[in-house]
Amino acid sequence: MKRHNFSAGPCILPKEVMLKASEAILDFDNGLSLIEISHRSKPFVDVMEKARALALELLGLEGKGYKALFLQGGASTQFLMVALNLLEKRAGYLNTGTWADKAIQEARIYDDVYEVASSKDANFNFIPKGYDIPTDYDYFHCTSNNTIFGTQMKSFPECDIPMVCDMSSDIFSRQLDFTKFDLIYAGAQKNMGPAGTTLVVVREDILGKVSRKIPSMMDYKVHIGKSSMFNTPPVFAVYTSMLTMEWLKNLGGIPAIEKENNKKAQLIYSEIDLNPLFKGYAMKEDRSKMNATFNLTNEDLKETFETMLDEEGINGLNGHRSVGGYRASMYNAMPLDSVGVLVDIMSELERKA
Amino acid sequence: MKRHNFSAGPCILPKEVMLKASEAILDFDNGLSLIEISHRSKPFVDVMEKARALALELLGLEGKGYKALFLQGGASTQFLMVALNLLEKRAGYLNTGTWADKAIQEARIYDDVYEVASSKDANFNFIPKGYDIPTDYDYFHCTSNNTIFGTQMKSFPECDIPMVCDMSSDIFSRQLDFTKFDLIYAGAQKNMGPAGTTLVVVREDILGKVSRKIPSMMDYKVHIGKSSMFNTPPVFAVYTSMLTMEWLKNLGGIPAIEKENNKKAQLIYSEIDLNPLFKGYAMKEDRSKMNATFNLTNEDLKETFETMLDEEGINGLNGHRSVGGYRASMYNAMPLDSVGVLVDIMSELERKA
Repeated sequence: MKRHNFSAGPCILPKEVMLKASEAILDFDNGLSLIEISHRSKPFVDVMEKARALALELLGLEGKGYKALFLQGGASTQFLMVALNLLEKRAGYLNTGTWADKAIQEARIYDDVYEVASSKDANFNFIPKGYDIPTDYDYFHCTSNNTIFGTQMKSFPECDIPMVCDMSSDIFSRQLDFTKFDLIYAGAQKNMGPAGTTLVVVREDILGKVSRKIPSMMDYKVHIGKSSMFNTPPVFAVYTSMLTMEWLKNLGGIPAIEKENNKKAQLIYSEIDLNPLFKGYAMKEDRSKMNATFNLTNEDLKETFETMLDEEGINGLNGHRSVGGYRASMYNAMPLDSVGVLVDIMSELERKA
Repeated sequence: MKRHNFSAGPCILPKEVMLKASEAILDFDNGLSLIEISHRSKPFVDVMEKARALALELLGLEGKGYKALFLQGGASTQFLMVALNLLEKRAGYLNTGTWADKAIQEARIYDDVYEVASSKDANFNFIPKGYDIPTDYDYFHCTSNNTIFGTQMKSFPECDIPMVCDMSSDIFSRQLDFTKFDLIYAGAQKNMGPAGTTLVVVREDILGKVSRKIPSMMDYKVHIGKSSMFNTPPVFAVYTSMLTMEWLKNLGGIPAIEKENNKKAQLIYSEIDLNPLFKGYAMKEDRSKMNATFNLTNEDLKETFETMLDEEGINGLNGHRSVGGYRASMYNAMPLDSVGVLVDIMSELERKA
């Protein structure tokens, strides 16, 4: 049975990427495996350089003063690194959900962190708007997409101070003017590759302005100085991310995938809005195109619905425990057909009920 | 042509591990890839728990108050985490090479760090002995094996304070009384798996004694509390490490592999000592069984020797730039036969010269 993987992350990756990654484990360089060669050997240095270049190319940031790094430790480590590298006195954070909140908690160890706005009182079912960002803060931090609650920032504030954005769950999914951002980070395991590496794209000129001594592994300047090879990089995760970025480039880049993502989102949200058995969780104007969160209006149908999902090979649709219900994660590699299978089951449930 | 991979790390892994890892990328859980399933799904939680249990089992540390974690960021991040979690006032470090020296530099950011002994003046070609470890220090830190210089600690000091050991390059290679250590860490990419995860084995009762607030990702207690799943783990690196530990267990564990490692070391060091064209770098009593470092006594033979190496498929034999010459890394998965091929070339060079 074909399985349709709606997992929130780690999540579906393109089939051709899986095939090439699997082959590289057996033979990458004249009979040697990708994971047994030196990371200082030319074949792997080429992989790292290609991955760094592709990230900037896809975001339209080549030659604009940015550097791309592939680090370890997930977005959770970036919560810490951002503060260590940029926070001197005070920073402003937009609190739009669990991950934004964790970013705030970690930064608070180092200095004063202020929430410019929060949707916590509404259990994060919308994105706050119309807030002010004080111009004397060190930076402003936001989270572009919230996997757990299914909300997404459709626009970003005008910002006179450096803007830092956690794009872990929607990087490479939609066109934005990425030059508005001074630091973008993203755990690989949604739109970019397997868990185990984190993309950091940073404008070099915002660095080096804090007075604290930064530990080497936490210092963006150290990693930039060593071309993202200060220590042994996670070779498999970087290689597979490079393959996924190549796949995206060959498809036509972000403009091409954005069209597909719009179709998938339209398909599922139309069904949620038209089918009386379902109710969307997030406010309509802030709905995420990556993660659609919804609940049954009649909990008595839960067992029937979930049996139907199982029978059609739908995987990973359970909502996060803080929201309940269902979450359809439709990252870049998710085919429109799989969303179609899910929507057909939702319609079928309505006919049956 | 068969290739013999003497790379210092990332390095050779068992063939059956490569095969299983490659297969898991295509199909791990009923048609879904290892790298696309949720890390919270039962199949992956089982992998993590098995990996943690195997690490303790192989080291003989089950039920003795230790916890095993699979973290990210390499040994370089451990240099920092050790200090953040254990250093309150002063710590003692044994300086036996590049990595030990880096551990010292990173810890110095946080507090006072004292070198109990160093072999720096001799470019680290021996292991200092007979030093004192003050009993009022927070901990003592050492590096069991030095990949760059080819030295290895054959014994460890009696120590009344917590003993921390970086075993990145010889973990699981020889029998030791591992209960002597309170914290052991090891980047995976030598004897355990691909780059991208770091094993930490820690006695829980040494934690929680420093006064500083530790960032979550840097806090061993946080990772222990979340069973090594505080954030998304590097699933591929953990799975492949689990496969390698299974392979080792099936071979007969550390006692069985130690016999093989002794044979390989004896073979190459006998040749180095008997063949007048070669000279070992490290002092004999401190020679590493993982990394044999040696130089040609007559540099005019360099081209001939290296052509012979190439013709027989010898890979990764170049010494580190700080030592020069050659380095034969013979980690657990290196077959005795490959060392035999290298030794035959060395003998053949002597006959030719």
